Amino acid sequence: MTDNDAYKGYKGEALSTLKNFNALVWSDVNIYTEQGKFTGLILPRSETADPYHIVLKLRTGYNIGIEAKKITNIEITGRKEAHYKIPEKEFPYDPKKPRVKLFGTGGTIASRLDYRTGAVIPAFSPGELYGSVPELADICNLETEKLYGVFSENMGPEQWIGTAKAIGEEIAKGVQGIVIGHGTDTMHHTAAILSFMVQNSPVPIVMVGSQRSSDRPSSDAALNLMHSVKTAADSDIAEVMVCMFGPTSDMYGLLHQGTRVRKMHSSYRSTFRTIGDIPIAMVNREKITPLRTDYKRRRSDKDVIINTAFEERVSIVYYYPNMKPDIIESLIENDYKGIVIAGTGLGHVNKPLYPALKKAKEKNIAVYMTVQTLWGYVQMYVYDTGRDMMELGVVPTANMLPEVAYMKLCWALGQSNDLEKVNEIMLTPIANDITDREPSNGYLIFQGGIPEVEEFISRYRK
Amino acid sequence: MTDNDAYKGYKGEALSTLKNFNALVWSDVNIYTEQGKFTGLILPRSETADPYHIVLKLRTGYNIGIEAKKITNIEITGRKEAHYKIPEKEFPYDPKKPRVKLFGTGGTIASRLDYRTGAVIPAFSPGELYGSVPELADICNLETEKLYGVFSENMGPEQWIGTAKAIGEEIAKGVQGIVIGHGTDTMHHTAAILSFMVQNSPVPIVMVGSQRSSDRPSSDAALNLMHSVKTAADSDIAEVMVCMFGPTSDMYGLLHQGTRVRKMHSSYRSTFRTIGDIPIAMVNREKITPLRTDYKRRRSDKDVIINTAFEERVSIVYYYPNMKPDIIESLIENDYKGIVIAGTGLGHVNKPLYPALKKAKEKNIAVYMTVQTLWGYVQMYVYDTGRDMMELGVVPTANMLPEVAYMKLCWALGQSNDLEKVNEIMLTPIANDITDREPSNGYLIFQGGIPEVEEFISRYRK
Repeated sequence: MTDNDAYKGYKGEALSTLKNFNALVWSDVNIYTEQGKFTGLILPRSETADPYHIVLKLRTGYNIGIEAKKITNIEITGRKEAHYKIPEKEFPYDPKKPRVKLFGTGGTIASRLDYRTGAVIPAFSPGELYGSVPELADICNLETEKLYGVFSENMGPEQWIGTAKAIGEEIAKGVQGIVIGHGTDTMHHTAAILSFMVQNSPVPIVMVGSQRSSDRPSSDAALNLMHSVKTAADSDIAEVMVCMFGPTSDMYGLLHQGTRVRKMHSSYRSTFRTIGDIPIAMVNREKITPLRTDYKRRRSDKDVIINTAFEERVSIVYYYPNMKPDIIESLIENDYKGIVIAGTGLGHVNKPLYPALKKAKEKNIAVYMTVQTLWGYVQMYVYDTGRDMMELGVVPTANMLPEVAYMKLCWALGQSNDLEKVNEIMLTPIANDITDREPSNGYLIFQGGIPEVEEFISRYRK
Repeated sequence: MTDNDAYKGYKGEALSTLKNFNALVWSDVNIYTEQGKFTGLILPRSETADPYHIVLKLRTGYNIGIEAKKITNIEITGRKEAHYKIPEKEFPYDPKKPRVKLFGTGGTIASRLDYRTGAVIPAFSPGELYGSVPELADICNLETEKLYGVFSENMGPEQWIGTAKAIGEEIAKGVQGIVIGHGTDTMHHTAAILSFMVQNSPVPIVMVGSQRSSDRPSSDAALNLMHSVKTAADSDIAEVMVCMFGPTSDMYGLLHQGTRVRKMHSSYRSTFRTIGDIPIAMVNREKITPLRTDYKRRRSDKDVIINTAFEERVSIVYYYPNMKPDIIESLIENDYKGIVIAGTGLGHVNKPLYPALKKAKEKNIAVYMTVQTLWGYVQMYVYDTGRDMMELGVVPTANMLPEVAYMKLCWALGQSNDLEKVNEIMLTPIANDITDREPSNGYLIFQGGIPEVEEFISRYRK
C-alpha cells in the first residue's frame, strides 16, 4: 500500500501527525487532545481537504474534524481496510417499464455502508444503485449520467444552464421521467431556475437529495431516491419538483413545486416546505397521491421549451432596520443590473434608502420587492411609504419568494435590458411563482384537513 | 372650515384634483379612473404624504391610493364630518391594582372607529384607551408615554437606546410591568436588541402591535393590548417578550421570547412565531399559562442593568448561489466592523467568497455565520468547506437567528473592538439567543402535544 492510500487525502500538518503516530486511515483510534478524548474511525479525505484537520467518524455516526496541532496522542485499537467498490449487480432491463434518467450534480443521493469499516461509498452507476437500492428495478429502467460534482452552495449559471440543456436533450430522446440528484443547500434555487429555463415539459422533472448520509441509521437517502424515481416513472405531474421527506418520520414523501419550495431546517429530513401553497402530491413506494389538481399533466409529445438566458449581475438585498444606503450604492457602482429586496412586513425599507433607490432607477436597474416573512404577499398600496417606493421604481412581486425572484430576475434580464419587457416577464406567473391566493392550510406547515392525507395516514398506520 | 381641514394633508397634484371636483375629505365618492371605478370614503392624509395619490377607504375596510393624474371624474354621494376626539373617560384608579407603563413608539396599538364616517382615531392617553378598551381598567392602573412616532421599518439606534433607557428609568421608579406599542415589521428586531440592552429586569417587558387596524372587524388590536397589559401586570415572567395572536383565530395570544421570535407572514394576525423553541406562555383575558419553566421570574427589587452600547457599521449578508465577492469587498471598503452571514444549509457560502472573507479577517472585521433556513443549527464541522471558513475567521453562532445575531453584533461591537472579547459576548447566551437543543415540537409551528395547551383549547371550545 502506498502512502497515498494509507493516508488518503491527508497533507501538511495533518499528514505528519498521522505518520507520527503511525495511524493509517480506516484505523479505530482514541485521539487525545487538549479538549479531551475522541473515539472513532479515521476517515480518508478529499483532494481539496485543508492540511490542518484529521476527520474522525464518531460512534454516533457524526464526523468531526480535529485540529492536528492540538493532538497529544493517538492510540490505535484496530484497523479494517475499506472496500472501495460497491458489489455491482446488473440493473435488470424490462421492456415493459418506463425509462428514467438520473442526472448527478454533486449531492450524494445514494451510497452504501461498508459495515466492516464504517466507510460510506457513494453509489451512482445503475449497477451500483441496483446493488444499494434494489427496489429501483421494480419501478423503471434506470440510466445515469454525472453532469457535475460540486457542493450545492457552489452551483452557478454553468451548472444551471448545462442541466437545463441536458434535460432538453433527454426529453427529445423520449425519456419518461427525469431525476436530478442535488445537494440540499440550494436545491430550491436550482428548482426555481429550472422551472423558468425548462418550460412545457411533457414529463416529470424531480429533484432529490438527502439530509443525512446513508451511514446513519436515520438516513433519508434511499427512500428519497425511491420516491423520486417512482414519481419520474409513474406520475402524471409534468412539473419541476423537489421530492423529500414529508413529516420528520419516513411515513411519506412530498412533491413540492419548484418555485414554491424552500429549505427551512438546517438538519431535519423534513426540511423542504412548500411556502404559500400546499405541496402538489404525497408519494410512498406504492403510489402518488395528488393533493391539488392545478398541476401540468404528462404528455406524449416532446415539445419542451429550453430557454437558458441568464444575467449574473443580480443581487438580493435582505433589509434590516438601520440599513445604510451604501449597501444599495455599492451595487449601483459595481454595475449590478437587478436587485431583489427582501423587505420587512408588506414590503418596506427605511427612508434613508430612498435616494439610493432613486439613483438605481436612474441607472436603469431593475428593482423588485419581496417579503422576508416568506409567507404572505407584498402589498405596497397600504401605506404611504410603499407608494413612495413604487414612485421610485420598486416593483412589488406579490407572493414570489425572494430566492425565486432572484433566479427569475437573472433569467428575465438575460432576455432583455428593456425594463418594461423585464417587468412583463417578472410579473407573468410561469410555474406558480406568483399565485392568486394562499390556501388557508398553506401557512407554516401542511397538515391535515385534506381527506386524501387523513385516509393515507390512517391506512399507513394500521 | 379652512382648506387645511377640508383637504387635510393633501398637496400638489392630489390637492388640485380634489379641488377640481370639489371633493372634501370624509366625502363618500365614486372615483372614475382609466382602471375603472372605485367607491369609498376620501381619507385625510398625514403631513408627510406624497402629492400624487388620493387615499380612499373602500367598503371592504382596505385603504387604497389612487393616482390623481389618472382620475377622470369624482362623483360625490355624501359627506359626514369626522370626530377627531375619542370620548375620553377618566381611567379609574384602584390602589390595589398594579401600575403598568405603556410606551408608544409608533405602531397603532389601539384606536376607535367613528362609525358615522369610517375614520380611525388612534387612542393613546389612558383616558382614550379606557374609552376604547374599558377592560384595561380591570387589570391595572395604566400610565402612557409616547416615546416616538415612526413606522417600524424606520426604527434605529436612537429609538432602541431611548427605549432601553426609558425602561430602566421606569423600573427604577418601581413599575410592575412595561408594555411597548410597536409597529409589527421590525418588532422582533427591537425585541432582540432590548433583550441585550435591558438585562436582569425584575418585571415583564411586553412588546405589542396589531396586524390589522381596528376599523376592520378582524382587528387584533384590542385583544393584543389586553393580553399584553395582562401579562405586564400579572405574569411571573420577567423577560422581554412579544405578545401577539397565537392561532389565526382569536382563541389565545402567545408570549414569545424576544430573541427567538420572527415575523413569518406579511398579513396574518398569527404572524409572530417562536423559532427553534416553543413560546414561553399562552395568554387569554383570564390567565397566563406558562408552556416552559426556564424563564426568568419576577422579582421585587429594582436591579435592572441597562447597557446601550451600539455600533452601527454592521450588515447582514444573505447568501445566494452565484454571489460575487464584490458584495463582501464593498462592506470592507465602506468600513463595516461586523458582518452576519445568513448562509445556506448548515452555514455555507461559495468558494469565490473565500478570498474576500480572508481580507475581512485581515481588516479585523467580525464575521459570524447563521443559517437562512431559520430553523436548526449552524454546523461548520461537518464539511471541509465549513472548516475552511472557520480558518478564515468566520464564527458559527449555533441557532442564533440572523436578525438576532445582527442586533447582538451591533451591541457587542459597541462594547469592544477586540474580536476575542466580541466573540465571548456573541457566543455567551444572554436571553436564550443560543440554546442547547431545539424541542421536537419547535419546528414550523407550535402545536399540540402539551397537556396545558390541549386542556386550554378544549376548555375554551366548550
